[in-house]
Amino acid sequence: MKENKYDDPDFFDQYRQMDRSVHGLHGAGEWHILQRLLPDFKGKRVLDLGCGFGWHCRYAVEKGAVSVTGIDISEKMLQEAGKINNLPEISYIRMPVEEIDYPENTFDVVISSLTFHYIPSFQSVCEKIQQCLTRGGHFVFSVEHPVYTAQGRQEWIYNGKEEKEHWPVDNYFQEGKREAVFLGKQVIKYHKTLTTYIRTLLLNGFELSDFVEPVPEQNMLDSVAEMKDELRRPMMLIISAIKK
Amino acid sequence: MKENKYDDPDFFDQYRQMDRSVHGLHGAGEWHILQRLLPDFKGKRVLDLGCGFGWHCRYAVEKGAVSVTGIDISEKMLQEAGKINNLPEISYIRMPVEEIDYPENTFDVVISSLTFHYIPSFQSVCEKIQQCLTRGGHFVFSVEHPVYTAQGRQEWIYNGKEEKEHWPVDNYFQEGKREAVFLGKQVIKYHKTLTTYIRTLLLNGFELSDFVEPVPEQNMLDSVAEMKDELRRPMMLIISAIKK
Repeated sequence: MKENKYDDPDFFDQYRQMDRSVHGLHGAGEWHILQRLLPDFKGKRVLDLGCGFGWHCRYAVEKGAVSVTGIDISEKMLQEAGKINNLPEISYIRMPVEEIDYPENTFDVVISSLTFHYIPSFQSVCEKIQQCLTRGGHFVFSVEHPVYTAQGRQEWIYNGKEEKEHWPVDNYFQEGKREAVFLGKQVIKYHKTLTTYIRTLLLNGFELSDFVEPVPEQNMLDSVAEMKDELRRPMMLIISAIKK
Repeated sequence: MKENKYDDPDFFDQYRQMDRSVHGLHGAGEWHILQRLLPDFKGKRVLDLGCGFGWHCRYAVEKGAVSVTGIDISEKMLQEAGKINNLPEISYIRMPVEEIDYPENTFDVVISSLTFHYIPSFQSVCEKIQQCLTRGGHFVFSVEHPVYTAQGRQEWIYNGKEEKEHWPVDNYFQEGKREAVFLGKQVIKYHKTLTTYIRTLLLNGFELSDFVEPVPEQNMLDSVAEMKDELRRPMMLIISAIKK
């Protein structure tokens, strides 16, 4: 049974209070980068893997997508998506991302925001996207950075004065399950190396078109003191690839 | 003035005793991966940036290269190369890597082993390689991993029992000079992010063809106890790219 933490009522309550839930895309610190890496959506058929509240689905439609399929395992997430991001071009489907099975040439663009670190195998997801994406189509995704997921706890090392000393990396080449704490709850994530993310794309018929480890926007760095810590270690990566 | 640590007599003495100096390619833990990423050398004109003792130059000739130019800043390294890897197809030139300036179509393959972390700008190196490499030509290089160079000291964090606790990452997005300790001496290195390595290639007309964070071979892992620590954090990355 796939883990479905977002249907845990406490966890969901916490998640819905996050900036990215309340304010949508502009509440997400990496949006200014992800947005730059997204392709032209005009006339495109779009698949969003791990669509959550549907903010990226809405964005694609607003930018001209003719149809958007949003996949998520969580009923609560999709209920909310159906309320706040309900547009006739969007179909929300409840399903684990790993179980998608679309025929060739179903989509022109596949996007996924911060979902693949919940999924054990990037290989199997890549194969399925390769299958349903049209040739020349774009696959753009963000994911937690391997530096962020490697050790597992996802917490800074503090010194005696409660200052952040450095970020710990360990067990980097041991891919697989990690028990992280997110929103006060234990959440299962799956660490993968950078080699796995990049090589799996290359070996499955994708050309890498962009790769960015996002940092907060300058106005965030200037106005929120603790944002400067985000320059001390990478937390996410955003990759854009094209099906050859 | 570019730093030229390898002409410091003490440092050089230390370096020449390393496995990779004494035993050549098979003394280098990452060679089994680098070798797989190298292209066919038959009939090729090859440039080796930071050639050191010339082991990779010799390898290219043995695999069929018609000419190899080995560039290094260190006189002592090139003296040794001239002794132990002196073949008629190889020309060794003493020069900082940043100062190469070859016309279009001079080389079919450019290789570089563990050199670019000594050079401040990857952008300027990439531009020069793009200029002199033929279309469809291969550019393959290894470099210290950004996780390894970020914090600067390049040392594990130990616990009270002198056990390695984890690897520290800090100042990841602050690119530039680091003072590391290597072979008992302070050495200047230049940290760059993964984004810089990959994006600079993509923006300078290269297609990424492979990307590997090497780990030691299984027989090394089985026979040398401390090799297992190499699975705890990435130390190098090896990238292969093709000029479009």
